[in-house]
Amino acid sequence: MREEEFSVTPWEVKGKVDYDRLIKEFGTDKIEEGLLTEIKKYTHDLHPLLKRKIFFSHRDLDWILAEYSKGVKFYLYTGRGPSGDVHLGHLVPWIFTKWLQDKFDVELWFQLTDDEKYLFEKKLGIRDAKKFARSNALDIIALGFDPEKTHIFSDIQLSGLLYPQALKVAKRVNFSTTKAIFGFNEQSNIGQIFFTSMQAVPAFLPSALAEKNIPCLIPHAIDQDPHFRLARDVLPKLGYLKPAAIHCKFFPGLKEGGKMSASKREDAIFTTDSKADVKKKISNAFTGGATSIKEQRTKGGNPDKCSIFQYYCYLFEWDDEKLQTIRNECKGGSLLCGECKKRLIERVEKFLEDHQRKREEAKDLLDKYLVEHSKKIFELYDK
Amino acid sequence: MREEEFSVTPWEVKGKVDYDRLIKEFGTDKIEEGLLTEIKKYTHDLHPLLKRKIFFSHRDLDWILAEYSKGVKFYLYTGRGPSGDVHLGHLVPWIFTKWLQDKFDVELWFQLTDDEKYLFEKKLGIRDAKKFARSNALDIIALGFDPEKTHIFSDIQLSGLLYPQALKVAKRVNFSTTKAIFGFNEQSNIGQIFFTSMQAVPAFLPSALAEKNIPCLIPHAIDQDPHFRLARDVLPKLGYLKPAAIHCKFFPGLKEGGKMSASKREDAIFTTDSKADVKKKISNAFTGGATSIKEQRTKGGNPDKCSIFQYYCYLFEWDDEKLQTIRNECKGGSLLCGECKKRLIERVEKFLEDHQRKREEAKDLLDKYLVEHSKKIFELYDK
Repeated sequence: MREEEFSVTPWEVKGKVDYDRLIKEFGTDKIEEGLLTEIKKYTHDLHPLLKRKIFFSHRDLDWILAEYSKGVKFYLYTGRGPSGDVHLGHLVPWIFTKWLQDKFDVELWFQLTDDEKYLFEKKLGIRDAKKFARSNALDIIALGFDPEKTHIFSDIQLSGLLYPQALKVAKRVNFSTTKAIFGFNEQSNIGQIFFTSMQAVPAFLPSALAEKNIPCLIPHAIDQDPHFRLARDVLPKLGYLKPAAIHCKFFPGLKEGGKMSASKREDAIFTTDSKADVKKKISNAFTGGATSIKEQRTKGGNPDKCSIFQYYCYLFEWDDEKLQTIRNECKGGSLLCGECKKRLIERVEKFLEDHQRKREEAKDLLDKYLVEHSKKIFELYDK
Repeated sequence: MREEEFSVTPWEVKGKVDYDRLIKEFGTDKIEEGLLTEIKKYTHDLHPLLKRKIFFSHRDLDWILAEYSKGVKFYLYTGRGPSGDVHLGHLVPWIFTKWLQDKFDVELWFQLTDDEKYLFEKKLGIRDAKKFARSNALDIIALGFDPEKTHIFSDIQLSGLLYPQALKVAKRVNFSTTKAIFGFNEQSNIGQIFFTSMQAVPAFLPSALAEKNIPCLIPHAIDQDPHFRLARDVLPKLGYLKPAAIHCKFFPGLKEGGKMSASKREDAIFTTDSKADVKKKISNAFTGGATSIKEQRTKGGNPDKCSIFQYYCYLFEWDDEKLQTIRNECKGGSLLCGECKKRLIERVEKFLEDHQRKREEAKDLLDKYLVEHSKKIFELYDK
């Protein structure tokens, strides 16, 4: 794979991603200044992830806002493939989703695709997938979503409701289409081929249950776009609205290049990591520093290719001025990598201490988000 | 299609079926005299559908009996694709299944594949499929299955339990296999491709729920064999037993040749038909009679190519001697088609009068077969 080559599918991101090219290839729209101004009308301030163009692309977000301005509320839908522990990269779109929920005061449907992970990960058992779904739900709850407005569910747990709806999508998608969109072939298993129908369901389920069309906005990492491209084709055929979406970039790993991946344990900081893990991982991280202290003092470092600086951008320094200071001090040679890492370690440790406490508390809250709503859903079962 | 050509798939039967060739092509075993003797050890008499070789083929039925002789009870699993009303042809394997249930005193799981019919019948809505599932269940109950031992369910109704199990099958079947077995192509919808996983589930669900292997015997018309051939490949990989099967021929239509089809309303007698319908349909039926009364009196008729005679064989004359008399009188020219049809009309009318009354009563029994058991199943939901 040459440097300018990359590939992005819902199951694998390879190479150095060119996000502008991705916008063209996927056919999404760039989030321009005008749209940010429009968002600000309702949110009053802009989330740093928007200002920093980490959320950089969208589909029909302008329409969602126009509807909102007329008093038509949307709901949010996002998800997680529970194939292992949650790392900091996973939190980025969820933290932004919570901000959207708070600012717009809207419902959120949070899908845990344990069926997908079971079907796509050769060695993952169905019990493992269900176990991770439950454990990952704790991380979601720890972020503080409104329990009255948030519905967390796993595909396996809620299949009694989801499968009948998924059939409606599946009837309108042929193998040829999934081959073109996802790159399936004759060796793909028949569950993988069917799965996109399940991911489409939360994009219209609240409308189906309410028996009226409710606009849907899906905040997600851009790699999931193929699923929703397909959903946008099919849903109008079922009488539902096309879901809108807002896309983020991939959180960088601690090594050079690429997306943070749960498969490389050293490359990512997990929400369950200990202080010792955090210290070790960040200390060993790839930076934009020069080869010697002397060189760095004179020539400065390069924050743009530094994984540590990206951590500040994505999650650990929401203050733009302070971020700019880090950047300037790095480039000017006054902030060395050791000190910069030390400061990040402190912030990550503090963040995780807080998150891990809330994650523990979430164990008692699980029913509030999960079972109660599932029960309510089952009452609607025959619809 | 030349006369010797025919094709049998779960969704279409074309041409004049050569059942001996089908046994070879599908790789099933013919039911020989030795096996009938073996069955009789437990049932004491043989059902006419066995004696008349209408149930003519099997997979591992000898093993089911050997296990039974050691005190290991099997369970029965059969099904119905609810795309319309039930006709007399559908009742043949069900009547035989009831006989098996009575003789062996075993559980029966009866699957209504409303998902399949929705996915495969272009014009059938999901509500239609669910409606037919419920209405067809009345016909099943009317046959008098043991309510304590019979579990009727629709795939859509029970998908909360079935879908998670179907995933286990789906993970182990690729598109290439379904293409070879079912003739799917790139235009097949992704629900159709997935569906066989759902049909495989009742072949191991009772074992999964009981957490021990229970042998399964599936009485069904031979056209469904491709599904169970696939299930027999996959289930051992999940630690379950291969299901055994016993196969019947297709009930003839009232017109010349082929299988009775629900799509040709005139060609079949439906359980909800009126006396006038029955009279009209049988009166217009294709017979083996000669071209004139005079010729028939002298040369006799041909019962082997007569749809009326087939009705006696399959459903309306269980007494072998009396059936032989009809045959002899037809061939000898003493029984003319008009009289023979009149006698059949009387029997069908009587049968339907009785069936329709029981079908009405079944409306009050539905919960006993359906919901009660579904409830029980939902208690086991988390397994």
